[in-house]
Amino acid sequence: MRCLLIVFITLLCCSPVLATETDPCIECHRQKTPAAVLQWQQSAHVGAGVGCADCHGSDHERLLSKEDMVDAAVCGKCHQDEFAEHTGSRHGMGLHAGWGCTRNLAGRDPAECRFCHEEGSTLPVSKVQCARFLKQSSEMGALGCNRCHQVENNCASCHSNHLTDARISEDPKICAKCHMGPDHPQWEMWETSLHGTLYYSAGPEVGPSCQNCHMSSGTHDVSIGLTSPPSMKPYPQEQQLQQRQAMIAICSQCHAPEFANRELSAADIIRQQSLDIIKQAVDVVQDINDRNLLDPKPSDRPAHPLRGHELVTDGQMLYEDYSHLERLLFKMKKYSLAKTVKGAYHQNPAYTHWYGNAELKMDLVDIRSEASRLKQGAGESSVDGKGANKPSIDDALKILKKKFERGAISQQEYDSAKKVLMQKYLESSE
Amino acid sequence: MRCLLIVFITLLCCSPVLATETDPCIECHRQKTPAAVLQWQQSAHVGAGVGCADCHGSDHERLLSKEDMVDAAVCGKCHQDEFAEHTGSRHGMGLHAGWGCTRNLAGRDPAECRFCHEEGSTLPVSKVQCARFLKQSSEMGALGCNRCHQVENNCASCHSNHLTDARISEDPKICAKCHMGPDHPQWEMWETSLHGTLYYSAGPEVGPSCQNCHMSSGTHDVSIGLTSPPSMKPYPQEQQLQQRQAMIAICSQCHAPEFANRELSAADIIRQQSLDIIKQAVDVVQDINDRNLLDPKPSDRPAHPLRGHELVTDGQMLYEDYSHLERLLFKMKKYSLAKTVKGAYHQNPAYTHWYGNAELKMDLVDIRSEASRLKQGAGESSVDGKGANKPSIDDALKILKKKFERGAISQQEYDSAKKVLMQKYLESSE
Amino acid sequence: MRCLLIVFITLLCCSPVLATETDPCIECHRQKTPAAVLQWQQSAHVGAGVGCADCHGSDHERLLSKEDMVDAAVCGKCHQDEFAEHTGSRHGMGLHAGWGCTRNLAGRDPAECRFCHEEGSTLPVSKVQCARFLKQSSEMGALGCNRCHQVENNCASCHSNHLTDARISEDPKICAKCHMGPDHPQWEMWETSLHGTLYYSAGPEVGPSCQNCHMSSGTHDVSIGLTSPPSMKPYPQEQQLQQRQAMIAICSQCHAPEFANRELSAADIIRQQSLDIIKQAVDVVQDINDRNLLDPKPSDRPAHPLRGHELVTDGQMLYEDYSHLERLLFKMKKYSLAKTVKGAYHQNPAYTHWYGNAELKMDLVDIRSEASRLKQGAGESSVDGKGANKPSIDDALKILKKKFERGAISQQEYDSAKKVLMQKYLESSE
Repeated sequence: MRCLLIVFITLLCCSPVLATETDPCIECHRQKTPAAVLQWQQSAHVGAGVGCADCHGSDHERLLSKEDMVDAAVCGKCHQDEFAEHTGSRHGMGLHAGWGCTRNLAGRDPAECRFCHEEGSTLPVSKVQCARFLKQSSEMGALGCNRCHQVENNCASCHSNHLTDARISEDPKICAKCHMGPDHPQWEMWETSLHGTLYYSAGPEVGPSCQNCHMSSGTHDVSIGLTSPPSMKPYPQEQQLQQRQAMIAICSQCHAPEFANRELSAADIIRQQSLDIIKQAVDVVQDINDRNLLDPKPSDRPAHPLRGHELVTDGQMLYEDYSHLERLLFKMKKYSLAKTVKGAYHQNPAYTHWYGNAELKMDLVDIRSEASRLKQGAGESSVDGKGANKPSIDDALKILKKKFERGAISQQEYDSAKKVLMQKYLESSE
Repeated sequence: MRCLLIVFITLLCCSPVLATETDPCIECHRQKTPAAVLQWQQSAHVGAGVGCADCHGSDHERLLSKEDMVDAAVCGKCHQDEFAEHTGSRHGMGLHAGWGCTRNLAGRDPAECRFCHEEGSTLPVSKVQCARFLKQSSEMGALGCNRCHQVENNCASCHSNHLTDARISEDPKICAKCHMGPDHPQWEMWETSLHGTLYYSAGPEVGPSCQNCHMSSGTHDVSIGLTSPPSMKPYPQEQQLQQRQAMIAICSQCHAPEFANRELSAADIIRQQSLDIIKQAVDVVQDINDRNLLDPKPSDRPAHPLRGHELVTDGQMLYEDYSHLERLLFKMKKYSLAKTVKGAYHQNPAYTHWYGNAELKMDLVDIRSEASRLKQGAGESSVDGKGANKPSIDDALKILKKKFERGAISQQEYDSAKKVLMQKYLESSE
Repeated sequence: MRCLLIVFITLLCCSPVLATETDPCIECHRQKTPAAVLQWQQSAHVGAGVGCADCHGSDHERLLSKEDMVDAAVCGKCHQDEFAEHTGSRHGMGLHAGWGCTRNLAGRDPAECRFCHEEGSTLPVSKVQCARFLKQSSEMGALGCNRCHQVENNCASCHSNHLTDARISEDPKICAKCHMGPDHPQWEMWETSLHGTLYYSAGPEVGPSCQNCHMSSGTHDVSIGLTSPPSMKPYPQEQQLQQRQAMIAICSQCHAPEFANRELSAADIIRQQSLDIIKQAVDVVQDINDRNLLDPKPSDRPAHPLRGHELVTDGQMLYEDYSHLERLLFKMKKYSLAKTVKGAYHQNPAYTHWYGNAELKMDLVDIRSEASRLKQGAGESSVDGKGANKPSIDDALKILKKKFERGAISQQEYDSAKKVLMQKYLESSE
């Protein structure tokens, strides 16, 4: 609707309408970039008198040097509401997604800001501060990372470059381009959910698309109704509640609000249960690191680009240059968790259960088994429980101290565990 | 056809036709559940005079407490033939599928009946007796398990809740909702088979859908022509033959019966070859268990909900709380086997070979390697065959005895293997 | 166009047009193979007077014994241009693909020819010389391998058996039938690329299909523009350049050539970076083999069908009867590499990065970890670097020699490494 309005207003302002044959760029570009010209000629921009130079500028040199890129701000000159909604949404921080910029999230840690901003400034010092991105070759970074994360400042991500055809931006397939794959198969889980199957069998009036629920009434704020950031750790209570109410209002266009609330609450519980399983795995990995048994150890391998020679198990975890145990945790946290939780919210049984929950639990089996193997390799324990050389009292106390120092146990738990260890030592040496 | 007939007969009996505006529930529910009302208004039920209360009853309290659920029996009051076909089919035991209820299968073991029924009764004591289900949280069980397995008593699984639109139930996408994923990707393998690609390129008249072959002539008995239960172990000869003939009759609507028979027989052989590979893997796992080398051992871990502290490698195998070795076997039995065998019957090369057969064989590599690692860890053998401490004669005899006791070798094989062992012992101690 | 021409010419030659009811085969086959008859009746062949016997011959006995198969040569009698293009293309060596026949590739090694041909002859002695195929059961070979690779001499692979409907052969789905799965998911990566999503949302005029780029202007030479064989090792410089120019000419139908060149060059770099990662992994595996630590060792396992008791890490690598370490390399080389590289050329971020690059790097983590485990198991090193029994000077020299003999290091590197080893030995024994 707003789109039509803009077209109409622009039509009034820019008469006479730009003739598609008289734009000065056309003559060459019909040869140079035939699809771009043809698509522009078929677009609403033509009727609205928006020609090549209006978006691209007319300085060829700046264009080729990429100084005059058509970024979201260029589109935002006319499409102001959409630009504002987009910028305030999760899409609007696409380039920061790897780092998980917290500027629009509640409960942010101000200390994190320095990764992207000068102290006290809101201007970015760098576009992306994601450990995985920093390890990429520039070619893989451009295609493998930014081709999706550029959504932050690139409307063409969803609208295509020169067409203005709503068939493109309203088709759920356009979301698939990025929202797919092992780390977040939202496309795949929607396509085979009841919503998706009804969309394809009975049409968009019956089966809702991605856009129907996440861009309801045409908003460009795609974050409405989301109750956790990509880490899956839920927002603070109040923010959660607000977001949930917004989503239930959307669900209620079709469903009873009680039904919607019940289903989404069940997914909340599944999210928490899944995070609990992840925690068990992280504990195992940290314990092995306390014991100095990772192979290779953090100290012996290429430095993490943000943390140096440290064990990293949070959102900045890598998928290279570390131990098999950490790689198992990466798969679990990045792939299996996303499938379980997003599968639950998208009501896809095969994703939440088989691709998700079952994998999570098998990942935990694998992680425990690898930990046991590492301890056995170090002679700390064996399959029959009779470890040839269990850690000495000195080592056991050191491991305990590390656990306390990284905050995994409280002062009280530390003291009491120390006492137990000492007691055992005295008994065994009697 | 039968559907139309029912509509017609009902129309005759229930005139004057129910006005969609006068149903007493409509006024509130147009606000409360707008999609439900709209879909019902567009359904054949309206014309047939079937109103809300006809299916849901009119006692709001019982409705909300879920006492008056619209289960398959409610639909079956009118749709009697379909209900009967459905109930007798594999869909009709969806909730028992995890356990693999054998009531409709040949060669069932009566002892198994007590999992679901009181001795001598056909009434169920519990709806589901599946070890994996019993380990689930109720939220995951409801969404991850029952959302599909409820097909037993829920016609809406395939027909949607309020629409009666044949476009939905005749579209293969509706089958995808459940018949997808790592454990049985029938949807994925059909979609990219010749049948599926012709369906989408040349239309349903040329490429057959799921329904064309598995619900031929509109039957609701989806089991027609299947020659093995989900375990993949083929039915007894006679039942197999009967089922095969039924399937070939369906294939012959398009193909020469000889061609259909040849292709299906090749798939039979692939099924047997795959079961043989599985058997090799199960043997390895059982042998490691005989040697007491599983880590953790069955005795040291949470009890299996149906079998306690026992090694379980059959259809009741879990995917949690056990050893890495068993988890490898689970993936092999549950995922790779299904892809190989179902991929063959659905004539999908990539599924039967790459996702199936190649994985099966790599699973076997992984399982043998893990077994070798466990034996090495216990000092039983080493990579150069010179085990530091091979099992003693006493241990070797114990392992052999366990193998005999679980039925893996006959009395004769046991006796002869014992003799060999003793002979070796005598020779080595000379 | 050419197709229409052929139809037209044939119409002129064969009048009066064959009546579909008078073909002598029809009467029986309407019962025996109803779909075949119906599809032929709807095909362009009828109008062109091409009856059953024209393709199948009329000798029933030969037909049933498969002596008179309708192979590509039969179609080629009329469709001469297409047959020639097909035969010269990569499709035209489908049955040799496993072996990677080099007859149409630059830089071929004449010694390889003897796998398929008598010395000095161009006649094949065997259809397929692929180690993986040779290990298959005949049923799996027929369905899992040849159902796709038969494209070499079977036009029906893409055109279906009796229809001549361009909707089938011009639909990208028909390519999916083979170009899918873990080893080369071209279908999946196109479907969710910008090209694929535009195809489905805005139509084939906007989003190009497989055929638009790989069979541009209707050619049947599907190899145009490809710069590497399935091994991904790029062609010699000149051939690469030629192929690239051909592809850019195709891209330029829509895009600026500079843009196309930039994107494809980035993919070239990603290809090389990925091959470098693979090389690191192959080096690890070969080193472990030099140390005699593969479990089982090549000498202790079933012979490789082409190389016997040898470590094979090239295109003839198996996925069975070997060690866990090799199985990890197989997955990396066959699956992860293909996803990274083909994902880059098809401009699919999720495939090139998550399914590709991330897996490649995790595979390398797994391979290094397994190598470390094998070395530890042999007491060669331990997690704290203090290997109980490092290889003796004799063993270290032997390992070095093997490395030299298989060409991994030059004579100079060998000599210098030997000197270092000897020096260390002298120092330690002082």
